[in-house]
Amino acid sequence: MSGNERSRLLGAAVDEELARALGRVVESVDGGKVADGIPELADVDPDRFGVSVASVLGRVYGAGDTGVGFTIQSASKPFVYAFACETVGTDAVHRSVGVEPSGEPFNAISLDELGRPENPFINAGAIVTTSLVPAADAEERFSRIHEALSRFAGRELDVDEEVYTSEADTGHRNRALAGLALAAGSLATDDVDSATDPYFRQCSLIVTTEDLALMGATLANGGVHPLTRDRVVGERAARDTLSVMATCGMYDRSGSWAFRVGMPAKSGVGGGIVAVRPGEFGVGVFSPPLDEAGNSLRGVAMLEELSARFGLHMFDHLRVPASPVGSATVDEGTRSVTLELRGELDFLAAEQVVHDAGRLVEHVDARTLRLDFDDVTYVSEVAERLLRATAAAAEEAGLDVQFPGAPEGIDPGIR
Amino acid sequence: MSGNERSRLLGAAVDEELARALGRVVESVDGGKVADGIPELADVDPDRFGVSVASVLGRVYGAGDTGVGFTIQSASKPFVYAFACETVGTDAVHRSVGVEPSGEPFNAISLDELGRPENPFINAGAIVTTSLVPAADAEERFSRIHEALSRFAGRELDVDEEVYTSEADTGHRNRALAGLALAAGSLATDDVDSATDPYFRQCSLIVTTEDLALMGATLANGGVHPLTRDRVVGERAARDTLSVMATCGMYDRSGSWAFRVGMPAKSGVGGGIVAVRPGEFGVGVFSPPLDEAGNSLRGVAMLEELSARFGLHMFDHLRVPASPVGSATVDEGTRSVTLELRGELDFLAAEQVVHDAGRLVEHVDARTLRLDFDDVTYVSEVAERLLRATAAAAEEAGLDVQFPGAPEGIDPGIR
Amino acid sequence: MSGNERSRLLGAAVDEELARALGRVVESVDGGKVADGIPELADVDPDRFGVSVASVLGRVYGAGDTGVGFTIQSASKPFVYAFACETVGTDAVHRSVGVEPSGEPFNAISLDELGRPENPFINAGAIVTTSLVPAADAEERFSRIHEALSRFAGRELDVDEEVYTSEADTGHRNRALAGLALAAGSLATDDVDSATDPYFRQCSLIVTTEDLALMGATLANGGVHPLTRDRVVGERAARDTLSVMATCGMYDRSGSWAFRVGMPAKSGVGGGIVAVRPGEFGVGVFSPPLDEAGNSLRGVAMLEELSARFGLHMFDHLRVPASPVGSATVDEGTRSVTLELRGELDFLAAEQVVHDAGRLVEHVDARTLRLDFDDVTYVSEVAERLLRATAAAAEEAGLDVQFPGAPEGIDPGIR
Amino acid sequence: MSGNERSRLLGAAVDEELARALGRVVESVDGGKVADGIPELADVDPDRFGVSVASVLGRVYGAGDTGVGFTIQSASKPFVYAFACETVGTDAVHRSVGVEPSGEPFNAISLDELGRPENPFINAGAIVTTSLVPAADAEERFSRIHEALSRFAGRELDVDEEVYTSEADTGHRNRALAGLALAAGSLATDDVDSATDPYFRQCSLIVTTEDLALMGATLANGGVHPLTRDRVVGERAARDTLSVMATCGMYDRSGSWAFRVGMPAKSGVGGGIVAVRPGEFGVGVFSPPLDEAGNSLRGVAMLEELSARFGLHMFDHLRVPASPVGSATVDEGTRSVTLELRGELDFLAAEQVVHDAGRLVEHVDARTLRLDFDDVTYVSEVAERLLRATAAAAEEAGLDVQFPGAPEGIDPGIR
Repeated sequence: MSGNERSRLLGAAVDEELARALGRVVESVDGGKVADGIPELADVDPDRFGVSVASVLGRVYGAGDTGVGFTIQSASKPFVYAFACETVGTDAVHRSVGVEPSGEPFNAISLDELGRPENPFINAGAIVTTSLVPAADAEERFSRIHEALSRFAGRELDVDEEVYTSEADTGHRNRALAGLALAAGSLATDDVDSATDPYFRQCSLIVTTEDLALMGATLANGGVHPLTRDRVVGERAARDTLSVMATCGMYDRSGSWAFRVGMPAKSGVGGGIVAVRPGEFGVGVFSPPLDEAGNSLRGVAMLEELSARFGLHMFDHLRVPASPVGSATVDEGTRSVTLELRGELDFLAAEQVVHDAGRLVEHVDARTLRLDFDDVTYVSEVAERLLRATAAAAEEAGLDVQFPGAPEGIDPGIR
Repeated sequence: MSGNERSRLLGAAVDEELARALGRVVESVDGGKVADGIPELADVDPDRFGVSVASVLGRVYGAGDTGVGFTIQSASKPFVYAFACETVGTDAVHRSVGVEPSGEPFNAISLDELGRPENPFINAGAIVTTSLVPAADAEERFSRIHEALSRFAGRELDVDEEVYTSEADTGHRNRALAGLALAAGSLATDDVDSATDPYFRQCSLIVTTEDLALMGATLANGGVHPLTRDRVVGERAARDTLSVMATCGMYDRSGSWAFRVGMPAKSGVGGGIVAVRPGEFGVGVFSPPLDEAGNSLRGVAMLEELSARFGLHMFDHLRVPASPVGSATVDEGTRSVTLELRGELDFLAAEQVVHDAGRLVEHVDARTLRLDFDDVTYVSEVAERLLRATAAAAEEAGLDVQFPGAPEGIDPGIR
Repeated sequence: MSGNERSRLLGAAVDEELARALGRVVESVDGGKVADGIPELADVDPDRFGVSVASVLGRVYGAGDTGVGFTIQSASKPFVYAFACETVGTDAVHRSVGVEPSGEPFNAISLDELGRPENPFINAGAIVTTSLVPAADAEERFSRIHEALSRFAGRELDVDEEVYTSEADTGHRNRALAGLALAAGSLATDDVDSATDPYFRQCSLIVTTEDLALMGATLANGGVHPLTRDRVVGERAARDTLSVMATCGMYDRSGSWAFRVGMPAKSGVGGGIVAVRPGEFGVGVFSPPLDEAGNSLRGVAMLEELSARFGLHMFDHLRVPASPVGSATVDEGTRSVTLELRGELDFLAAEQVVHDAGRLVEHVDARTLRLDFDDVTYVSEVAERLLRATAAAAEEAGLDVQFPGAPEGIDPGIR
Repeated sequence: MSGNERSRLLGAAVDEELARALGRVVESVDGGKVADGIPELADVDPDRFGVSVASVLGRVYGAGDTGVGFTIQSASKPFVYAFACETVGTDAVHRSVGVEPSGEPFNAISLDELGRPENPFINAGAIVTTSLVPAADAEERFSRIHEALSRFAGRELDVDEEVYTSEADTGHRNRALAGLALAAGSLATDDVDSATDPYFRQCSLIVTTEDLALMGATLANGGVHPLTRDRVVGERAARDTLSVMATCGMYDRSGSWAFRVGMPAKSGVGGGIVAVRPGEFGVGVFSPPLDEAGNSLRGVAMLEELSARFGLHMFDHLRVPASPVGSATVDEGTRSVTLELRGELDFLAAEQVVHDAGRLVEHVDARTLRLDFDDVTYVSEVAERLLRATAAAAEEAGLDVQFPGAPEGIDPGIR
């Protein structure tokens, strides 16, 4: 056996875990009904079933039909929302669409007291969100959305033209929803079709579970695609998208979904679901038969399985944060203290640094404090403020403070 | 200046950050109305304002009136819920109370289609939750709840007897809610008072912002008090409580709260709010004047400030997970690979171990694989399964696999 | 054959019509479910079926089980409401209870924005209405209600003590509703039981379809019992009761009931329904099996049959009003015009008088106008104003105006 | 003073009563806000105020600005509904639109569980109703509606072309509502504009309070115009329209309107309201400033005034029905009884005839029974059945029965 084969055997353990989970769901969950709003959706093979998991570190695992294409449908909504937030700003988006769970089905027609669709994931809200993408016409609008969603996936996605045509032909209700939004002043264009046409097209994009997993992993990773390293959207747009997925992703089951599964998610009537363990994974599942709420029956079961067996619930086993202080060295002779910092410095990490530094300075009655930033990869604003304030206090107390390797702005001298 | 004084100066940076944030809120936010349901609440000094932050590592910071006592009111609900889940099991609790946001005020009287209050944080749901604590009578029930909430705080809490008496005297509506739950079969006792009386008492417990911060930190820490190291509730009860706080904690503003603040939270009409950054912090704030939704006006503003300025939104800057592989050593002579593992091994960490091990084994065509568990503090079930499966595959491929320091069960020999 | 037998044969036609209608319903409508909230109700014979019709002129007809007693249950609500309006005034009643259809089931727990039950026919509203009857305690309150309902029926009604005891024992929900109303400030007593106990008793009164028909006929007749001639309540209380029955009598089916049946009505879970054709008839039906909305299945069908086949829909064939001018005599010699008025003079009738008088005066260039009131039985306020104004104008124009037989106040001389 | 002048003085009393009522409203009610959805409505003189009352006997009275034209707006809905029911049948109409009060504003967008607008008076329901009028295109559809509404008014109505154009230009929401109805399968055409365009036009028809009063009087009169004697719609369509006006005419105030005013009614944002006292009067009022519910503020006050002071509440002072037996003659010699019948014979009247006939036959031991129909103007189906059955019974008992002047079918010989 070659080393290469050994490696493959070793690496297969995750795929095998996924395959076992898939098998359990196949055995225990049956029924549901394939979406039949349009004939093109009804013709799909109901037995297709696949799952993919992509980590923020760029590894992709899977089981079942991971390479089968299907239309993304409503699972496109979080990504178009993220793109709109990135393009025109979150505040501008939410002047036109709310952020409360509607407790209603996906095609609900209620508007909130400000005349906005209640959130960007009901159809009316998604159409409004689409309309917010700046463009001269329907074609340009879809072209921009197409490019954005392809970047989320890390490859160029195709449109299923038959599905698009059929949805456009029968989309009376969605056009009516757009008209209501127009009448209420929420639609960003006064040409209803220039919002609904790109909407029908974005719903008709063909994806695989791998695509959905990587799209989710891009959100999990703060907007950067784990493989292409392309920053598709900023951290704020990614955070806002996950927030909306956490409360509005599963229609009128948001509370129990957050309780049982605990992963921000979004489903589509094509049978796909995208779910995210923030900071860690994206998950894509696909199985066409739907439950009464319009979510993939086996897809939901698979995500429950992953949440329960893989510990993916976002509040499951909250990991004790790793210390940002890699090592602390005290030179008794010079009475200097050196802390080698590492990783990302956010509020919690900075608090640890400040705390440890204070304890050591006191312990050795230090004269010099050195905070080594060479292995630091990120400093948040509050962390910077804390470290600068600490440095200033230390200097005032007569210490010599040094920040080797620190990014500009941390240096207390440039306050 | 002594070293001790230097240390204090250094450590003061976090308190100062909090004080600045508090100052900004004092300047920019005014108004609101102190709760006046009972005279004892109306008499409170409206200008009191404090904030405390407690980390899972046990440090507590604060600014303003952090030592002033006030009645906990509805901020008791998550902790009684956690205690009930721990005592009778989450499933048993949810046979009697739902888990969907009600989109309604705290004293809403609607029951869901199963006759259950919609969630444990509306009054009806909290009374039902209280009734689920097994006890012979009202006194024993409150005694158990009193002990549990004191353990969450890390000190024995007192009851404000005047508030309790006044609430008991005027609690017609809450007794009626209990009666409705009894009629619907959700109340665990057929003596209404033996549920409402402990409920009135638990609402009358006196806390400070430090208490709330530590109670929240206990949830953030998976159920273990950061200072006393007392396991108050299990990980599952802590997770479930955070889930409910995330979707139902702020009444009919759950969506926008999750969006803007992004911390599971619960408020009380006494002016207190407890919020949690899971895995990191608990936060307690106190300011009596309330907004129309019954939440502390300045308390909400303070949490928005903390979320925005301290990066405490739970989806804010998702930290890249630290590697579980502290060091990897290859002995070219013996063709043995040693990975020193560290910290907590969950699914993500185990995947990294398996991935790195496979790559190295292939790279050096290794004959021996050693995974050193000495610095590992936790192994989740899925991580154990992955590591066992990988070890089995490696042995099958002819490698000698060793797990120095591994907990029982990881050892491939005992499969 | 004696004349007496002939008369009976002639009079039997109405009973026979009712019997045929009853037969059609028996043949075409089956199913439903006897109320089983308490065992005493579940034991009733489901095949009992009767209908009675009582006219405001005092004739009572019937078919089927017209003499079988059953508990009145919620069909008591209109009569207690009428009695409360009569006793404390309609305005006082509606400070505590609303008048909008709730669109909800009978045991709904919602209160309106003023803290009032939405109408007096949902349980909460009926309990509040009961509480408004002035009394020192529960016993006196029921005693007064008992007397009032007996007067509506024209005979002393009995209480089914077993039903009462059973409902009182299991009435947690109704007591809770009373508690909510107390908490909201709508209950007129702060002793919950002194409202619910009389409520349970009034629901347990035993009636027959004849009783219900006569109780309804009393409302149809403006508050006067057609046989005893007892004025049970005033015209205004009767009118208000019919208004509420018209919009809130059949729970969440008010619109379609008004549309299809068109008779103000109220049902009870005992299987009884009382319905009214205002100004003409009261109807009582009884058949225990209920539909999903809790209304007697065959009872509803019987009322639809009566509405359709007997023309009892209140907007069905609107009768052309009879002329109030019995005869008009012109004495050409004296140029005097005499109108013999008859019946009831309301706005429409007075307008006819004024119109006809004017036309005749002009036609004969009259010098004297005589309006003979001998056969007038009632003069409404607006009619009096119109007639007085007309008399004044006539005198001003030089006519001699005379009102033989007119009630005081009509006489123009006493303006 | 001529007789003619005397007559005018006499007849002026009703107008004067109305003028006094108008004056009281002008003095006591002020405020409100003229509709400003389109500029053409906003330009109206807010001080215009008029009222007209038309009786089923054809007299029309008024006070204030009775001749000022305004657009009918939503007050057109009952008449288009009546026309649709007449044209395609009530059942067909209600397969596409419900009959429950929606408890929501006029432009509500909810559909019931069958996908129908909840009633024909919310905008969506009115558009669906309009679509049900059979026509090849928008023009023909409006042409038919135009003709029907003109017949209701008794004169050809004009369209305000500016209002129509403006409403058509800004009618996004109404077109969207039509689209929703189309998507739900309720719209009778798949060309949205061929429903909304006639709808916009019918709302733009110009009427006066006299027109509205006569249109209402036509409904009050069972579908026959009191002046032109034109049967515009059948009795059933008139009855159904009154039923819907009674429960759905005033949006979310149906219960309190029925309670306080007690007249089936419909308002329009142009400031008009049409109300009906069934069987007696139609009322039209006009005053542009609206209350928050979108009803004419002074118009509502005027109808409350009329209801209270003129006794127009439909359950107010329920008139004792006039006897259908004009005279009863007994010829002792021939032992024959003759009853001279008069007016309209419905169930109540027939019962009186049967009852009186039986009593007399018994009293004199009669041999012959004569029911003289010369003055009878109408015989309902149930009345005919009762009289035929009575005749048959009488013949069987040996009496000679005669029906001089009876319509065919009453004659017992032709059973």
